Amino acid sequence: MNKATLLQEIKAKKSFLCVGLDTDLDKIPTHLLEEEDPIFAFNKEIIAATEDLCVAYKPNIAFFECYGAKGWESLRKTCEILPQNTFRIADAKRGDIGNTSSRYAEAFFNPKISGLDFDAITIAPYMGEDSVTPFLDFKDKWAIVLALTSNAGSKNFQNFTNADGKQLFEEVIEQVNTWGSTDNLMYVVGATRGEAFLNIRKYAPNHFLLVPGVGAQGGSLSDVCQYGMNDECGLLVNSTRAIIYASNGKDFAEKAREEAIKVQREMEAELIKKGIIS
Amino acid sequence: MNKATLLQEIKAKKSFLCVGLDTDLDKIPTHLLEEEDPIFAFNKEIIAATEDLCVAYKPNIAFFECYGAKGWESLRKTCEILPQNTFRIADAKRGDIGNTSSRYAEAFFNPKISGLDFDAITIAPYMGEDSVTPFLDFKDKWAIVLALTSNAGSKNFQNFTNADGKQLFEEVIEQVNTWGSTDNLMYVVGATRGEAFLNIRKYAPNHFLLVPGVGAQGGSLSDVCQYGMNDECGLLVNSTRAIIYASNGKDFAEKAREEAIKVQREMEAELIKKGIIS
Repeated sequence: MNKATLLQEIKAKKSFLCVGLDTDLDKIPTHLLEEEDPIFAFNKEIIAATEDLCVAYKPNIAFFECYGAKGWESLRKTCEILPQNTFRIADAKRGDIGNTSSRYAEAFFNPKISGLDFDAITIAPYMGEDSVTPFLDFKDKWAIVLALTSNAGSKNFQNFTNADGKQLFEEVIEQVNTWGSTDNLMYVVGATRGEAFLNIRKYAPNHFLLVPGVGAQGGSLSDVCQYGMNDECGLLVNSTRAIIYASNGKDFAEKAREEAIKVQREMEAELIKKGIIS
Repeated sequence: MNKATLLQEIKAKKSFLCVGLDTDLDKIPTHLLEEEDPIFAFNKEIIAATEDLCVAYKPNIAFFECYGAKGWESLRKTCEILPQNTFRIADAKRGDIGNTSSRYAEAFFNPKISGLDFDAITIAPYMGEDSVTPFLDFKDKWAIVLALTSNAGSKNFQNFTNADGKQLFEEVIEQVNTWGSTDNLMYVVGATRGEAFLNIRKYAPNHFLLVPGVGAQGGSLSDVCQYGMNDECGLLVNSTRAIIYASNGKDFAEKAREEAIKVQREMEAELIKKGIIS
């Protein structure tokens, strides 16, 4: 999916919601455990209940991969039913040397080889340029590079500061910016520190930011919008637990929809406030 | 595998060789392409030809993953035949927030869930402590954390330097050291800069180092040993292309063995020189 189509979807759906699919057998409704593929069965109902309310889905690859080949088959089936008008993100945090990163790119971007056809993949930048650029060789595909994350450990290295007062995550954005463009690069920025977006926007005024941490992790949507939204939106805000685990009964899809509607309405108000939609 | 057993294997085999399994359908002998699972068929012959000469194997997960579920099944079968007396490393470069890293740990360390039973996994440290520690909760399993890699892009961020002159990779080693011990943590240090090991050994005198980049990538084994070997060896030196692609004919396994013998003999001489074996 290219940037123009993504912007169009945001306006049409009045939403910049990304629904995370961290599908956990310990948390999904027990009646689904009788299905042949409970993970796929759960995802299918969640997708059907939310696809008109969100513009992106983000399967967390670890939750599939922990079941080995069987989990990867659940991932393939899930990817196959993700609507074409949504931005499909593989949350995989890959990153290796050039020829190996090319293989990871094939894994997530080349359905003829792997069976998977994602629009984007999350990337860890530690290994540098040749670990990111192989993902940018695919037309209309995106690398979403970790910048400032919202987990406890983010402080360990992301705030490492050089003699000029520049922090590692700022150096990452500044360098990664030169490897691609706002048409194929996004950054992961955690929502738990609203004002941090001011600083991020200094380095990446025009890039889309993928923002986890709203809702269950404590971040506030209005803070993120106040400090992080740009003139064309520039945000994909992820919510996982608050939506997909809104209920663990037979009504889980219905309750997920109710939660997604709440978030979509908040997002609509933010888009109107910014003058992006009327 | 615990450290005592690894040290024992090094002495018994007079080797600290790790054989990388970056099995590429474009590079393996064409007669294997007729097999039902060419990747597994290739790995099986390479393993049989080298298992008495090396102490570790390192499948590169990207080369399996690019084939989706089918590739993960080749990985499972490969993992299953890796000899129990070798140190089995999943070269996966994973790293995510705590509860997701726990899933990745299950994927590679819990055969009951995933079918895979590796001894160690390579980890990218960008997300900090909670992205590493879930791998340390498994008895006799190891996290091998990226410190100073040998690829072109390693310079982008790993040499980022703070006001005291400390580089990011040094900060990584210093902090990661406190999260585990020499019994469950190793570091990846590229071989292309022999003297860099002096500096690494200041921060990690007693840890094992996993060293890629010897051979095809240009690093010298004698330099690595001169600057990086400690009193109990402390090195696992990886070779991939020079061994597994020594020939692309029907004699590929035999030629791989010949190359592995050459490396093992060099290693034996280094172990004698250091007084580790006699």
